[in-house]
Amino acid sequence: MPAISLITLAVADVARARAFYEALGLRAAPPNEEAVAFLDGGGVVLSLYGRDALAGDTGLADGRPGGITLAFNVERPEQVGERLATAVTAGAKVLKEPREMPWGGVTAYFADLDGHPWEITWVPDFPLTEDGRIVLATAEDEEDG
Amino acid sequence: MPAISLITLAVADVARARAFYEALGLRAAPPNEEAVAFLDGGGVVLSLYGRDALAGDTGLADGRPGGITLAFNVERPEQVGERLATAVTAGAKVLKEPREMPWGGVTAYFADLDGHPWEITWVPDFPLTEDGRIVLATAEDEEDG
Repeated sequence: MPAISLITLAVADVARARAFYEALGLRAAPPNEEAVAFLDGGGVVLSLYGRDALAGDTGLADGRPGGITLAFNVERPEQVGERLATAVTAGAKVLKEPREMPWGGVTAYFADLDGHPWEITWVPDFPLTEDGRIVLATAEDEEDG
Repeated sequence: MPAISLITLAVADVARARAFYEALGLRAAPPNEEAVAFLDGGGVVLSLYGRDALAGDTGLADGRPGGITLAFNVERPEQVGERLATAVTAGAKVLKEPREMPWGGVTAYFADLDGHPWEITWVPDFPLTEDGRIVLATAEDEEDG
């Protein structure tokens, strides 16, 4: 069964947004990058990402507050296209065909029946559990270890 | 640590959207209601909810595609206000103060620093795991049991 593995919020300032979610009790995973932050959301990862960068990735020229994508992470790069084909058969519209990303992964985007954008992505640095969740090492885990 | 427990997508037709996500491999939880659907998203629950109904709940008069709320579910009704206060201290803006909902729970909404709407909610019918995730009985679970 596919797991919803990651939620990306488009933000104006990644560091500022990370501090906000840390204040709410979520733990960030190192490293502390300027371009993107990953936080442990329990069963799902919360990603904070620049508004323009997200609009560039999805092809949706849409910098409004509310820019959110949801993601299925997959185990192998070829599964990006397979999963995209399943979504298209179900009625999804392709936003971006699978392509290699500058950070080394493979990603595609589709819009669901109501226009909600989803990412299907293979991220070499993100190992997955058997049920499709991302294994995220937070700073606290590193301190513990 | 707070868990992101639920993602709500505003949709035009709940049954149609549910069929789409079932086609992607997600399992729906019974009962099959017209007003709302809950699907097992792995570590997080995916909720499909009418566009007007979600706009009414959040107070955001916003029926556009892209209407999404994320939620923290809490164990006790008084925790809704406590968690909201933490968010406000961190810079969040209150959208809706905690209030009793027609379906028997207590819910508040806030906007994060970039305007992303979040729900803090106590749902009597949703038992939580120790780490704050919703225990969702899917149709398949019922068939198994």
